[in-house]
Amino acid sequence: MPLVYVTRHLHFSAAHRLHSSLLNDESNAHLYGACNNPLGHGHNYDLEVTVVGEPDPVTGMVIDLKELKEIVQREVIDRMDHKFLNFEVESLQGMVPTAENIVIAIWQLLKDQFHTCRLYELKLYETPRNMAVYRGE
Amino acid sequence: MPLVYVTRHLHFSAAHRLHSSLLNDESNAHLYGACNNPLGHGHNYDLEVTVVGEPDPVTGMVIDLKELKEIVQREVIDRMDHKFLNFEVESLQGMVPTAENIVIAIWQLLKDQFHTCRLYELKLYETPRNMAVYRGE
Amino acid sequence: MPLVYVTRHLHFSAAHRLHSSLLNDESNAHLYGACNNPLGHGHNYDLEVTVVGEPDPVTGMVIDLKELKEIVQREVIDRMDHKFLNFEVESLQGMVPTAENIVIAIWQLLKDQFHTCRLYELKLYETPRNMAVYRGE
Amino acid sequence: MPLVYVTRHLHFSAAHRLHSSLLNDESNAHLYGACNNPLGHGHNYDLEVTVVGEPDPVTGMVIDLKELKEIVQREVIDRMDHKFLNFEVESLQGMVPTAENIVIAIWQLLKDQFHTCRLYELKLYETPRNMAVYRGE
Amino acid sequence: MPLVYVTRHLHFSAAHRLHSSLLNDESNAHLYGACNNPLGHGHNYDLEVTVVGEPDPVTGMVIDLKELKEIVQREVIDRMDHKFLNFEVESLQGMVPTAENIVIAIWQLLKDQFHTCRLYELKLYETPRNMAVYRGE
Amino acid sequence: MPLVYVTRHLHFSAAHRLHSSLLNDESNAHLYGACNNPLGHGHNYDLEVTVVGEPDPVTGMVIDLKELKEIVQREVIDRMDHKFLNFEVESLQGMVPTAENIVIAIWQLLKDQFHTCRLYELKLYETPRNMAVYRGE
Repeated sequence: MPLVYVTRHLHFSAAHRLHSSLLNDESNAHLYGACNNPLGHGHNYDLEVTVVGEPDPVTGMVIDLKELKEIVQREVIDRMDHKFLNFEVESLQGMVPTAENIVIAIWQLLKDQFHTCRLYELKLYETPRNMAVYRGE
Repeated sequence: MPLVYVTRHLHFSAAHRLHSSLLNDESNAHLYGACNNPLGHGHNYDLEVTVVGEPDPVTGMVIDLKELKEIVQREVIDRMDHKFLNFEVESLQGMVPTAENIVIAIWQLLKDQFHTCRLYELKLYETPRNMAVYRGE
Repeated sequence: MPLVYVTRHLHFSAAHRLHSSLLNDESNAHLYGACNNPLGHGHNYDLEVTVVGEPDPVTGMVIDLKELKEIVQREVIDRMDHKFLNFEVESLQGMVPTAENIVIAIWQLLKDQFHTCRLYELKLYETPRNMAVYRGE
Repeated sequence: MPLVYVTRHLHFSAAHRLHSSLLNDESNAHLYGACNNPLGHGHNYDLEVTVVGEPDPVTGMVIDLKELKEIVQREVIDRMDHKFLNFEVESLQGMVPTAENIVIAIWQLLKDQFHTCRLYELKLYETPRNMAVYRGE
Repeated sequence: MPLVYVTRHLHFSAAHRLHSSLLNDESNAHLYGACNNPLGHGHNYDLEVTVVGEPDPVTGMVIDLKELKEIVQREVIDRMDHKFLNFEVESLQGMVPTAENIVIAIWQLLKDQFHTCRLYELKLYETPRNMAVYRGE
Repeated sequence: MPLVYVTRHLHFSAAHRLHSSLLNDESNAHLYGACNNPLGHGHNYDLEVTVVGEPDPVTGMVIDLKELKEIVQREVIDRMDHKFLNFEVESLQGMVPTAENIVIAIWQLLKDQFHTCRLYELKLYETPRNMAVYRGE
């Protein structure tokens, strides 16, 4: 049976501040520059969720995209959209909310949510010019 | 010799209806929702065709992109563009024309068309937010 | 008081056939080419709705974008999304559903829906390469 | 002499909160919904700055785009990028930082900065789906 | 009768050098910077051609987009695509090929080509970040 | 430790001519068509640089994106931007500057520049429709 990858684009808008509790203020300011601004700044995050599986012979679908969208909405968007990521998102507590750490946290939220297919890849655009990808490796 | 992946974007516009002959009308309506509308609806499909091979030492090309375009135009676009996919495309007969099934059908049309390189991946955007990818696995 | 233009992007997917009841079949085929295919074809339509008005001194908004979205959803998207435009959309009956005629029909559906601001412009992309704009002139 | 419009795209990332000091907390929450989140959220703002003028007969330019970029960088980007707009941007104090109010504030910062040409239009995308335009009217 | 604006996107790739014959080499180098590189550089130019007119009551079209495309192909693309604009394009001789001057030259090539409608606006993107617009004013 | 892929988009504008010194003029003209134009033509090249590595437990970053940008700016953009690729770029001498050969040359310039992570993939868009990808295979 053929394996097909299915991707759905979603998005959320959030504020964050890059600041590591393991570094002093001077090191944080030097390392993160403007991203260390104490009051934070924000982004429109674009998230591409890719699952892989065999199309069902009856429905022709790897997964119903409405169901995929509902899962990501419930597990990720409802938790992160219009939030200040450093303070209001449980799965990001104790981490610097870089795109790298956010995409790993989203993987943890989504990896056990699919049954007829498997989570394959997450792409997280912080801006149209910067992106982090995680495949659970 | 280095292996390079070369991609060409093409597009076609078509109508389709999601309806499985293996399900009754009520199940089809429940499963596919608005996509089951009896008269169909349509999309601008964006197709990204990727081949892989070694650049020719004389020409510097894995494949002449004009040739790649002509092959996809002849094998895919001429058959699917401005058509109602359920009724007018031979290679989709007996299938639900989901993005998953369309991308597999396009693979069958293209996989033996390349000689200096190998078909590697097809990406089919049904909308800018939904995509199916097939790599012949 | 300053005048600000506010735009919201929305989208719908629909099938259509270009065929004029005022022309015979041969003329239709010659005029519209592949767009005259009897079973139709389809598009992802992108619609940009622009209103103009003065930002409210209390709220800072020309219009609440949630309200703008709900109006366009109810008046336009719910009527046209996942439909065959020639047969299933009341306001397009008796017309060739070219982008030009669709954008005028959408204007009629929207022009009296705004109270704190005024409908200024509609942009309708039939494909990413073709667009029709109407300003009620 | 012909009049040509010249546009340069720039961008900044910032946090904001929609909250009106003229409304009580309950009205703010009801009016702005998630955008009223007390800790704020954020966006990648895309700004398109358009000036209009006659191309110089010697240089062929309405304005040197490097100069246009430097002006917008100095007057707008340096003040708003990686900031919390409600608290850290002088020209937004006392306003709700809606896209409408931000684009008017940017107009005030830029309108007297051009000498060989005239500021014609500002487009401010808050997200790829929402935009406010101001022309100084 | 309603007035509708119809736009078609086209593109061409060309080389150019910004160098004014009215300035000495030092002034050219200072003014145009890297764009003055003697051997030239190049761009993918995106051209948006907008015409305005009344949709024909029989066809529903302001202009047949195939005809619009053929006119622009013949008058503009065939002359400028894959050319070095300073030396190989007759209508740009004696000018600095800035986006401003190119868009005016394209207007001259197109302005008398339409009969059922009128050329309204040309947008020329030199890069996705820089654009010149001309409306024949 | 998780492996995350981090991508940064950059761009440069350059002229080139497709012409192979191993073929005679007639064969070059036939093979490359308009791309063989003796004076050359040009493109806006979009380059996506992807590195892979483990996010640093202290900083949350695979690599500081400012550092990634500086490396690509110094090694690639400063050498290729606003240049005629056939004559002015050392690492392209003796090659036909196809997208395939350019992306391999950029790999050579970048592959030893990263220390906390590893160069994984380069995507080079010659136009929005054509792309070459190299992964060092």
